[in-house]
Amino acid sequence: MKIVVLGGDGYCGWATALYLSAKGHNVAILDNYIRRQWDHELSAQTLTPIQPLSDRLRTWCRLTGKTIDMFIGDVTDYDFLVSSLKSFEPEAIVHFAEQRSAPYSMIDRKHAVFTQVNNVVGTLNVLFAMREALPDCHLVKLGTMGEYGTPNIDIEEGYITIEHNGRKDILPFPKQPGSFYHLSKVHDSHNMMFTCKIWGLRATDLNQGVVYGTMTDEVAMDEALINRFDYDDVFGTVLNRFCVQAAIGQPLTVYGKGGQTRGFLDIRDTVRCIEIAVSNPAAPGEFRVFNQFTEQFSVYDLAMMVYRVGTAEGMKIEVQHLPNPRVEKEEHYYNAKNTLLRDLGLEPHCLSESLLDSLMHFAIRYKDRVDRSQIMPTVTWK
Amino acid sequence: MKIVVLGGDGYCGWATALYLSAKGHNVAILDNYIRRQWDHELSAQTLTPIQPLSDRLRTWCRLTGKTIDMFIGDVTDYDFLVSSLKSFEPEAIVHFAEQRSAPYSMIDRKHAVFTQVNNVVGTLNVLFAMREALPDCHLVKLGTMGEYGTPNIDIEEGYITIEHNGRKDILPFPKQPGSFYHLSKVHDSHNMMFTCKIWGLRATDLNQGVVYGTMTDEVAMDEALINRFDYDDVFGTVLNRFCVQAAIGQPLTVYGKGGQTRGFLDIRDTVRCIEIAVSNPAAPGEFRVFNQFTEQFSVYDLAMMVYRVGTAEGMKIEVQHLPNPRVEKEEHYYNAKNTLLRDLGLEPHCLSESLLDSLMHFAIRYKDRVDRSQIMPTVTWK
Repeated sequence: MKIVVLGGDGYCGWATALYLSAKGHNVAILDNYIRRQWDHELSAQTLTPIQPLSDRLRTWCRLTGKTIDMFIGDVTDYDFLVSSLKSFEPEAIVHFAEQRSAPYSMIDRKHAVFTQVNNVVGTLNVLFAMREALPDCHLVKLGTMGEYGTPNIDIEEGYITIEHNGRKDILPFPKQPGSFYHLSKVHDSHNMMFTCKIWGLRATDLNQGVVYGTMTDEVAMDEALINRFDYDDVFGTVLNRFCVQAAIGQPLTVYGKGGQTRGFLDIRDTVRCIEIAVSNPAAPGEFRVFNQFTEQFSVYDLAMMVYRVGTAEGMKIEVQHLPNPRVEKEEHYYNAKNTLLRDLGLEPHCLSESLLDSLMHFAIRYKDRVDRSQIMPTVTWK
Repeated sequence: MKIVVLGGDGYCGWATALYLSAKGHNVAILDNYIRRQWDHELSAQTLTPIQPLSDRLRTWCRLTGKTIDMFIGDVTDYDFLVSSLKSFEPEAIVHFAEQRSAPYSMIDRKHAVFTQVNNVVGTLNVLFAMREALPDCHLVKLGTMGEYGTPNIDIEEGYITIEHNGRKDILPFPKQPGSFYHLSKVHDSHNMMFTCKIWGLRATDLNQGVVYGTMTDEVAMDEALINRFDYDDVFGTVLNRFCVQAAIGQPLTVYGKGGQTRGFLDIRDTVRCIEIAVSNPAAPGEFRVFNQFTEQFSVYDLAMMVYRVGTAEGMKIEVQHLPNPRVEKEEHYYNAKNTLLRDLGLEPHCLSESLLDSLMHFAIRYKDRVDRSQIMPTVTWK
């Protein structure tokens, strides 16, 4: 299948592009390198020494004989986007090309406005380009479990049946996002639902949990293919950060009580979920929502897992509670459904089995590259 | 009370600014005249001969002795917005300053993107300006009943109690907006809810129905104070259009079957609802939602009311069904709650009593200004 990965130079995008290419799909990457630009803006770096995209793709071709096309530009530039899509003619568009950090969106007004305009306009452009040039193409769009917030009821996959005053309807699940970034994904979801309805587009919204790990079979083939591993306070995710802290002997920093519970998944499951969504397209006019995570943990659960694994390896690990820089519940009910992707064939990796190999050993291997000044939270929600 | 009306040169904004000034409030208008610019873009004109804002305000001062300050600029220009607000120091901000036409947002990609960026960034700027300069100010923001769409259950005022799998929560009412414009209001609502939660701002979201009429006590005082009356296919609302069609002997154009049911209100109730919201501010941190309409009608109901009133006046009226340019249900359940504003003192005007005086006689009086080429729908949703 011909598949374009928007944002294919980023963390999930790069792993996905290689995985789909390895599976025999004809893959193109569309990216504007802005993720690398944000590293410069924040004076931060991925733990891992990633290579320029052109070098990555040359290595991939040398090792596998497979070529991946590059389209360098911005999805908010409609003329560039639509001409790229017309030239490649994808059957599926995998859309990772958004600003994806909650803290980045909370830095100040300009970053909030940038995040919402960038993400909303980019996705609107993708939808209009599909209508103009590729009306039968399937959009696989990355949303986030954070769209739902932490309601006091079970979280369903996108829709909920509501009975009210003796009547019943299936309605979009209510959204309570917790940052300007998460809000941008809610805006996207509403825009996509509407265009599926009025134009008959096909779309799958993948409400993804927090991704951890960096190893996939493909990026493991050569050092030049190595993926990002973000541990800084703005783009780093919690489990990556804990492993880096363990590796350098810094206390694991739990925000507040640590009772914040979320859905998590291994990046090897991210790429498999994308393949499943692409291989089982939504019907024309269908706006389909999958919850894309495999296990639920609280932040404190994660700290304890890292503590146990690290201690067993002979490391000396402390856990430190910091005042929470975010505004969020630290003790709450959380039970989110995630059966749709499993029903289509997902076989999850478990964190308990991946923690050492895919995370801790990686953090230890590159610990000399850690910038200790990048770890403590600097962005607050208040 | 010191109140700034953002978008105070527009249809609802102008009537509101005068009404609040007449009630003794210290009122300022902030506007960038873009509504007049859209008339030029579309080669359309209001039925009524409106005067420049400075002339309007001079007349108002001459008649009443009351001055209304003017701040001319764009809410998407943060520096202008925050400096204006710091200078005036309002206790309440009434925010009408958005692109408010569904068909305008559906013209093409550029108009869709403009509508969402303009509305979302303008409201984000208002929220950030409140945090920076006026943390105790009360935001009264115009939303739309169109945020809810047409669910098969009763529509509550902003929130709904959901029982699910034996648990219960009060959650935001699910949204199913029907145009890029209506979507922009949903985006705004989510952004406002979030900032009330994290920054403790006070906000009231007024989900307004379709407004009809142009006469209020204040604009009736002098021809120079006359308000807009839009009947064109892009900015005109359905009842205004029907009255103009009756006045010029053109068939009333019902889109599709005409079973589309919506909430409606007289502009005299709009201004009163704003006063009620301003006088009863939301608590710090509260994101309050009122459904602001007084009666429900289907489009066909309205055509029949105009038919009966016009026929009784000796007019010859036909009703014509056009293919629906929108994608919407033409037969559906619709029962929306609207008790919160009544509980605070709203005494609604009934359409059956206003139709002749506030609408039909007005359309007849200015019928020589009607541009017949502006009435038939030109923008389609497909």
